[in-house]
Amino acid sequence: MKAEILTIGDELLRGEIVDTNKSFLADRLLGLDIETHFQTSVRDDPPAMIDAFQRAASRSDITLVSGGLGPTRDDLTAAVLAEAFGLELLLDEATLETIRSFFRSRSREMTENNASQARFPKGADILPNPLGTAPGFSITQGSTRFFCLPGVPNEMTLMMDEQVMPRIESARGEGVAVRARLLRTFGMGESTLDDELKDIAASGDVSLGFRTSFPDNYLRPLARAASAEQAEAALDRVCDAIRQRLGPLVYGEDQQTLDAVVGQMLAERGMTIAVAESCTGGLIATRITDNPGSSAYFAGGVIAYSDAAKSALLGVPAAALEEHGAVSDPVVRAMAEGVRERFDVDIGIATTGISGPDGGTDSKPVGLVHIALAREGATYAESFVFRMDRARHRLLTSQIALDWVRRTLLDVELVGPKWAQR
Amino acid sequence: MKAEILTIGDELLRGEIVDTNKSFLADRLLGLDIETHFQTSVRDDPPAMIDAFQRAASRSDITLVSGGLGPTRDDLTAAVLAEAFGLELLLDEATLETIRSFFRSRSREMTENNASQARFPKGADILPNPLGTAPGFSITQGSTRFFCLPGVPNEMTLMMDEQVMPRIESARGEGVAVRARLLRTFGMGESTLDDELKDIAASGDVSLGFRTSFPDNYLRPLARAASAEQAEAALDRVCDAIRQRLGPLVYGEDQQTLDAVVGQMLAERGMTIAVAESCTGGLIATRITDNPGSSAYFAGGVIAYSDAAKSALLGVPAAALEEHGAVSDPVVRAMAEGVRERFDVDIGIATTGISGPDGGTDSKPVGLVHIALAREGATYAESFVFRMDRARHRLLTSQIALDWVRRTLLDVELVGPKWAQR
Repeated sequence: MKAEILTIGDELLRGEIVDTNKSFLADRLLGLDIETHFQTSVRDDPPAMIDAFQRAASRSDITLVSGGLGPTRDDLTAAVLAEAFGLELLLDEATLETIRSFFRSRSREMTENNASQARFPKGADILPNPLGTAPGFSITQGSTRFFCLPGVPNEMTLMMDEQVMPRIESARGEGVAVRARLLRTFGMGESTLDDELKDIAASGDVSLGFRTSFPDNYLRPLARAASAEQAEAALDRVCDAIRQRLGPLVYGEDQQTLDAVVGQMLAERGMTIAVAESCTGGLIATRITDNPGSSAYFAGGVIAYSDAAKSALLGVPAAALEEHGAVSDPVVRAMAEGVRERFDVDIGIATTGISGPDGGTDSKPVGLVHIALAREGATYAESFVFRMDRARHRLLTSQIALDWVRRTLLDVELVGPKWAQR
Repeated sequence: MKAEILTIGDELLRGEIVDTNKSFLADRLLGLDIETHFQTSVRDDPPAMIDAFQRAASRSDITLVSGGLGPTRDDLTAAVLAEAFGLELLLDEATLETIRSFFRSRSREMTENNASQARFPKGADILPNPLGTAPGFSITQGSTRFFCLPGVPNEMTLMMDEQVMPRIESARGEGVAVRARLLRTFGMGESTLDDELKDIAASGDVSLGFRTSFPDNYLRPLARAASAEQAEAALDRVCDAIRQRLGPLVYGEDQQTLDAVVGQMLAERGMTIAVAESCTGGLIATRITDNPGSSAYFAGGVIAYSDAAKSALLGVPAAALEEHGAVSDPVVRAMAEGVRERFDVDIGIATTGISGPDGGTDSKPVGLVHIALAREGATYAESFVFRMDRARHRLLTSQIALDWVRRTLLDVELVGPKWAQR
């Protein structure tokens, strides 16, 4: 099946927003093993929209349209699509009633524009929108089946998953099911992963894709089978084999971020954590507290940018700072132990380094970073040199620190990424 | 002038990366008052590329192409564009020599593929790429002038600004110059801004656009004049009038973030700051330390998620915590004063609140936040209720806190956003 994606809206063509809908939709199609051949964006402009609809009908099997379903004068998708193919525009009473009750329940006045959202091209299959007043619709014209969705991302994503994906699957008919998963790994480069998993990738009904999202590498097994159950079973088999092979390098699946995984593990174990950050400047704490409910396991932290703060708030010995400097093994250890003790938590983590672009010396170059983890009875520390820009340096450092917490809880060796230079 | 943007690459059509090039290019064109009518993405696939090139040549005055200029087999832009219009592909000796010396200077072997980057359609104007081995080119076919740029964002953006923009301007001929600026404001809603600036927006040769980027609102004056100098002078005039009208609501121009502005002001004054964060969980510190050189003015901070941390590390009286709770005026004041004293800095800022989605009560609902700023001799605090998701709640809270630092340094009133609910 050949797909294309069409997004509609002046704001896209003016560059006012980055169009993330396209990559989301393309990714979902790929999950069904459907390649997107064209992506087009046009303004809220009938001639351009008509041209785009007609071209899609002549060249693609599936066309996903996003935008132009709202209640304003600019929202023209249903009317213009009807015009493009000489179809009548019909009022759908059930949709109108849904919109009416939406406004009633909020004690708001419904306008004529809102009512226009209940008009669809004759023959359209209406796609409910549980999050807004703009329903979508689907209709076949020429060689293509159009799926028209709102442009609002959370409405669009939900409707893609709940309304569109099952219809595409069932249109394929009996005997073809495709399922995909994302395994998130940290610590091994893409070519090494490729090498390690060569035999698994080559074993039959599941194909294995790779994707990089700094500092992680994602694996994307995709299974084709006669039924959804068989495809899921094949994925289970391959994911188990990959996890067995890679061990703790796999930290999560699909949307699970490393900070969310670490948070869940801490919560499950009833354990607590605190952070002492110098070069990461609060990024580790920010990532931990991005997750709702983090107060159950996160006590807090100290951002110790200055030497004085390292001494006064974390108890780093002045002698260590003087003798070894702030970016050093003794100091990072004292920071991790100090924050663990002061916050009275199970695990303390610490970072100190030179994220750049300035501040390096011959013996301590830009990119040098020390990371430490202190737990009951033991402190582990290691240093790395990462030659990359400031933002990536901070992100990678935070990722190693969080990964060490995960590894500590799993009781496996604390290691840095295999591709990192010591 | 009617423009279109064409991006090329399998990775875009597979949804592996979000295509930010398109919004960048559209925004730059808008800076010259040129509207983009179409955006298209196609795979590294000659028939699809030929179709896209030929359509562009039939409908647009300017076509910006990004991608497909690298040294791999997938990089087909020059060859396929030549094929689309029946042009010869010619080797450019000067470019070949530049590529050769690039490899010589890095002691790396040059491959035949690299040499292919020196072949261009006959008649092309070559656009130097100071950051990589892939030069761009420009050529006119049909009604359109193509500008072909690499897909790598930092190379593409530099070449757009240095090579493409001046050529578009000079192609317009004498007597037409367009210039635009972005004024960044925080604290007033878009419709109020529109109202406040109505007379300025209506005054002649400068048009005023609005754009929202939560939690900020940007103003975008655009001037058309007979020369670049006149356009710049008109912009100066309008920007001065806007700044006079809005006062401290305008915090920066173009790419200046609020944290960068605050950092620069602190550095200029030789002043220092520390943060005590509860609900923002390190976000304010992260934003401050995103900026290189922040160690000159940022001493550090305490992330006091737990009550114990608020007492032990910031000296918040246990009685205040017990009587008023952690999310309260006395506590946020004590946090700001405590961090100021402990880090021995000029300004201490503090946040405590309920970012949600859970944790609210009747008297302290989800969304409640207290913010404080302590300086020599005075502490200022205020509370707000922001009904929005966790990520926005944290971002907005951090923005107010940073804006208060700026307002303190400007010696103007500390206020929250006018659209905020107390």
